[in-house]
Amino acid sequence: MTKPLFKVSTPQEVIMMLKDNLNLEEIVRSNIEVVNIKTALHRILAEKIFASSNLPGFNRSTMDGYAIRAEDSFGANESLPSYLKIMGEIKMGVRPDFKIKLGEAAKISTGGMLPEGANAVMMLEYTEQIDDSVLEVRKPISPWENVVREDEDLKTGEIILGKGHRLRPQDIGVLAGIGKTNIKIYRKPKIAIISTGNEIIPAEEKPLIGQVRDINSYTLGACIEEAGGIPVYRGIVKDEINLLEQNIRETIKKDKVEAVIISGGSSVGARDITLEVLNKLGKPGVLIHGVSVKPGKPTILAIVDNRPIFGLPGHPVSAMVIFDLFLRPLISWLQGRDYNYNFDSRKELEAELTCNVLSDSGREDYIRVFVYEKDKKFYAEPILGKSGLISTMVRASGLIKIGVNIEGLEKGRKVMVKLF
Amino acid sequence: MTKPLFKVSTPQEVIMMLKDNLNLEEIVRSNIEVVNIKTALHRILAEKIFASSNLPGFNRSTMDGYAIRAEDSFGANESLPSYLKIMGEIKMGVRPDFKIKLGEAAKISTGGMLPEGANAVMMLEYTEQIDDSVLEVRKPISPWENVVREDEDLKTGEIILGKGHRLRPQDIGVLAGIGKTNIKIYRKPKIAIISTGNEIIPAEEKPLIGQVRDINSYTLGACIEEAGGIPVYRGIVKDEINLLEQNIRETIKKDKVEAVIISGGSSVGARDITLEVLNKLGKPGVLIHGVSVKPGKPTILAIVDNRPIFGLPGHPVSAMVIFDLFLRPLISWLQGRDYNYNFDSRKELEAELTCNVLSDSGREDYIRVFVYEKDKKFYAEPILGKSGLISTMVRASGLIKIGVNIEGLEKGRKVMVKLF
Repeated sequence: MTKPLFKVSTPQEVIMMLKDNLNLEEIVRSNIEVVNIKTALHRILAEKIFASSNLPGFNRSTMDGYAIRAEDSFGANESLPSYLKIMGEIKMGVRPDFKIKLGEAAKISTGGMLPEGANAVMMLEYTEQIDDSVLEVRKPISPWENVVREDEDLKTGEIILGKGHRLRPQDIGVLAGIGKTNIKIYRKPKIAIISTGNEIIPAEEKPLIGQVRDINSYTLGACIEEAGGIPVYRGIVKDEINLLEQNIRETIKKDKVEAVIISGGSSVGARDITLEVLNKLGKPGVLIHGVSVKPGKPTILAIVDNRPIFGLPGHPVSAMVIFDLFLRPLISWLQGRDYNYNFDSRKELEAELTCNVLSDSGREDYIRVFVYEKDKKFYAEPILGKSGLISTMVRASGLIKIGVNIEGLEKGRKVMVKLF
Repeated sequence: MTKPLFKVSTPQEVIMMLKDNLNLEEIVRSNIEVVNIKTALHRILAEKIFASSNLPGFNRSTMDGYAIRAEDSFGANESLPSYLKIMGEIKMGVRPDFKIKLGEAAKISTGGMLPEGANAVMMLEYTEQIDDSVLEVRKPISPWENVVREDEDLKTGEIILGKGHRLRPQDIGVLAGIGKTNIKIYRKPKIAIISTGNEIIPAEEKPLIGQVRDINSYTLGACIEEAGGIPVYRGIVKDEINLLEQNIRETIKKDKVEAVIISGGSSVGARDITLEVLNKLGKPGVLIHGVSVKPGKPTILAIVDNRPIFGLPGHPVSAMVIFDLFLRPLISWLQGRDYNYNFDSRKELEAELTCNVLSDSGREDYIRVFVYEKDKKFYAEPILGKSGLISTMVRASGLIKIGVNIEGLEKGRKVMVKLF
């Protein structure tokens, strides 16, 4: 007699649905801006970066010492040193105006340019200056020892960074090194958040009995920011068809958002309103209604005017789990990246489960766990509690996933915890 | 005959020196600001957060169905259902103006408030409304099933978040839930970066032969930002005592920075200038000169006027390694956090080494590696190349550490890669 509320889809089906029905290229193409590299940390490159010249561009010393011809040091040692003629000292940042021939040496500092003819730098420690013009050398060195060749860091024309690359500090550094101080990156996607529910009030207000403050706008806003998007807070909308419809139209048109999250409306009545509005707004409309994920089952996905609109469950834990599954990767796609970028995601940690965890097969289960360290080992302690309790997420260190065909995990088993 | 440039200290000694000579409490105490929680993601709490009231503050339904007394469902099943009198429907966000007694039920939606007397919610799926006032119930439920108790999420007075906690999306959510929309957090520490070296020119300019663009200001600036600080770019200073001294005084006084990084000046002459200036500026002056880390040996630490001043090697790879070892944790300390916070750091990944790596004992070695996946296994391929080559860091996925007493690692060995 139990009637299912709706036919659920797997997470894979949701992702397929998104990819099949969204024209990502069109969105990504028009989403490019130019910024200074000082503001580009963790942003996504929208152009391929080539080396426009060699780096460092000249043969550069990596040590303090003497620029010489390596051949002059061959066979030299403590008891039988070589003697070279000191031709001068090389100034930093200046091209030397003399050459080094066999039997000659020039004083050089770390970072200095080798004179023409020199092909190695003898470290200061293995030399002694006998007088103004005579240098004693006590060690053999190979050609190009203690030298960075003119094209050793970068060769002209070499591809340094690819389109879609997420910029790390060293990438910003290499861009500075080639003088590319302004770059094309993808704009951060703007994602609107609409909270629904007649019992929800703004966080600044004091609830009457029966009312609760809006938690999801804040949680999801921070999730969007963390994932590299810009949250557009649309506030709370009452569960009425016209209000919800008007609000979505406005945020798409005026805020120019790339996606919309409607959170809340977990009751059948509210869900019906959301479904009706989403089908009314445009084609293809509602594509997914229910996913085989716990918590998070009553999730809705619609696409309207090449924009994904997600109806997320009102329970804060469910909303966060679904955000991680679908919205986090979406924010990457919208910046020209792949869904399946490998180790470039959140920190994971292996830990031992402290008790048995049950799960129904036929769905993915996400279990909140608290991670602690004892005797240099990590343990994951499941946190029980309804998905309506935000405090369980606050106490949790991360989530573990129980796959669709697994009925549970035993105490003592190693699990991978995806840390928050 | 090889004379050591200086007596090197271990990384542990550097950290001890910092802790012993810095009055962290004094810095941290005066470094507090109040912000709205919408701008507080990943910031560090400067106050303990208590629950000022219960959350949700009333008994709240987690399902669509009927609020009843659980006792009325005991023994009910498909063939022998119970019958209850329907007393009305509960509006969302409003306190019900009637009670539920034995034999009574009231329609309720997810998120609605249970009327006085009711202690459970019977899911819609297990009921049938016979007529306006009679409800058939076909399943037994326990007291408080499908209900979040009034203090189940948070109890009045409960400590929710501690001082020094780094705010995650769910923490922002719980703060909204209790109406605490403005909070005290630690200000982001301001760290000045001064690039030195007469051969260094601004990244915007075109180098003459013998000159190179400033890479370290950009790399370190991005590192500071990534670690949660604010970079203060002081540009390039020529290797002259007066200029360097004036510049450091200015950034401490005018920019009010909490720490200073001097990058470059890897030559003996430049290093001598840095040492002289740091000892001149105030007490205790230079504390460390040289660390047993490769790359990164010629590192200087001074403390002046309760501010750490780091002299980092000019080689970009060395500068980044030393930043990670000492500056990243420092930025945490300056916001009231511990050095040894455990798994709350960077993502690590286990991978198999693709070739032998040599290391000298007596120092920590940091090896750049490229990580790739093959047949569902991760491999770490060491990247060779001098520490002056920024391109090696761009090609690298992360670093592996070889401890002080280990002489090398063999091909095939499992290593932990600290990913960038």
